Amino acid sequence: MSGTLFGIGVGPGDPELLTLKAVRLLSRVPVVAYPAPLDGDSLARGIVAAHLPAGIEEIALRMAFDPAKRADDAYDAGADVIAGHLASGRDVAVLCEGDPLFFGSFVYLFARLGERFPVEVVPGVSSVMACAATLGHPLTARDDALVIIPAPRPEDEIERLLASAESAAIMKLGRHLPKVWRVLNRLGLAKHAVYIERAGQPGERIRPLAEAAADPAAPYFAMILVHRRGKAWN
Amino acid sequence: MSGTLFGIGVGPGDPELLTLKAVRLLSRVPVVAYPAPLDGDSLARGIVAAHLPAGIEEIALRMAFDPAKRADDAYDAGADVIAGHLASGRDVAVLCEGDPLFFGSFVYLFARLGERFPVEVVPGVSSVMACAATLGHPLTARDDALVIIPAPRPEDEIERLLASAESAAIMKLGRHLPKVWRVLNRLGLAKHAVYIERAGQPGERIRPLAEAAADPAAPYFAMILVHRRGKAWN
Repeated sequence: MSGTLFGIGVGPGDPELLTLKAVRLLSRVPVVAYPAPLDGDSLARGIVAAHLPAGIEEIALRMAFDPAKRADDAYDAGADVIAGHLASGRDVAVLCEGDPLFFGSFVYLFARLGERFPVEVVPGVSSVMACAATLGHPLTARDDALVIIPAPRPEDEIERLLASAESAAIMKLGRHLPKVWRVLNRLGLAKHAVYIERAGQPGERIRPLAEAAADPAAPYFAMILVHRRGKAWN
Repeated sequence: MSGTLFGIGVGPGDPELLTLKAVRLLSRVPVVAYPAPLDGDSLARGIVAAHLPAGIEEIALRMAFDPAKRADDAYDAGADVIAGHLASGRDVAVLCEGDPLFFGSFVYLFARLGERFPVEVVPGVSSVMACAATLGHPLTARDDALVIIPAPRPEDEIERLLASAESAAIMKLGRHLPKVWRVLNRLGLAKHAVYIERAGQPGERIRPLAEAAADPAAPYFAMILVHRRGKAWN
């Protein structure tokens, strides 16, 4: 009998935002896999470090961190190693920052392994909700629509998406922040927008958006939340 | 010194999707408040029941469940009771299904109390991510945009919102399902859509969307997920 592939959301960074289910599964799976940079520590592994039993087998899926580039080779190779364990009957837990199916690297492993092995996904707290909590910024009430926008999208698409809903979260800001700032000003939404870097991670920082937008680039893990009915924060 | 108002996300229904932080806080606050129907049990309280210490003071915020109507009087009265505890120095934890700031009843208490008392929000696992996990339906990858649409919105607005992004979650279906079904068919998206009722709650049920759409109404806690690149599920 083959093992089960678990996709485990470990939340945005604070180890206390792990779910009870994630902790229970990590205490009993024989193998854990996680994305990691080519050199250095895995953020996802760091979140669960206190819950990894001694002797658990670890698979670091090492890949260059380049948001603009796909890492198909790394996922192919990682999927092969994971498939070997599953075929031998060992369950494998794949750790994912935030939620596994929401911009999670798990999506790429799921695409490669989901039709060959049993899969169970454990949802996690998303960075969108964590940023809202830290900023005290309501995302939606009543019948508000909320749109999640990756900042690398072209400027005209960001403008169209931002105009479409009452509430928005703009993720993956990085060097795209000045472009997003232009759009927010053009739509008259800058005064309803709030900004945060690395919510729940080491180095978390809340800054006035106008100040951050004057820099040439923001961190990749920076986010803007904006609500048309929100009070003028800036 | 006044107490702190905690807004605690308790997740979509499965008690194992509580966070470690929610469990820790519930073990030490003297007062807990939660939304409840006029008669009967509170869903949010049921999720955390195993973690409520003996002797904790409970405030049931009883209100008629009518998604089309605001419950301002009930929130005013509840906020007054909670304010009394906070002013006397007692911390109060308000339970919220899913996440407190994402269609959570906490938003209305936060609006009434947030400027008078210290507030801490503990984010929770959203039903959107829980539905995706149960259905094995990736929400977003790469630079996909995701739009969250409440089904009570007018038909033309649902059509415009659905057309705007690669991925969508349509919530609060209830009697609005036939309308949403028409829009999905008009946009050619029906074959990329999946349907689930009461994810993670008692009575969870996955049904073919076409079958559910033939009924006059769905449960309020029913959801459709749709992704333009998703495989043809139906």
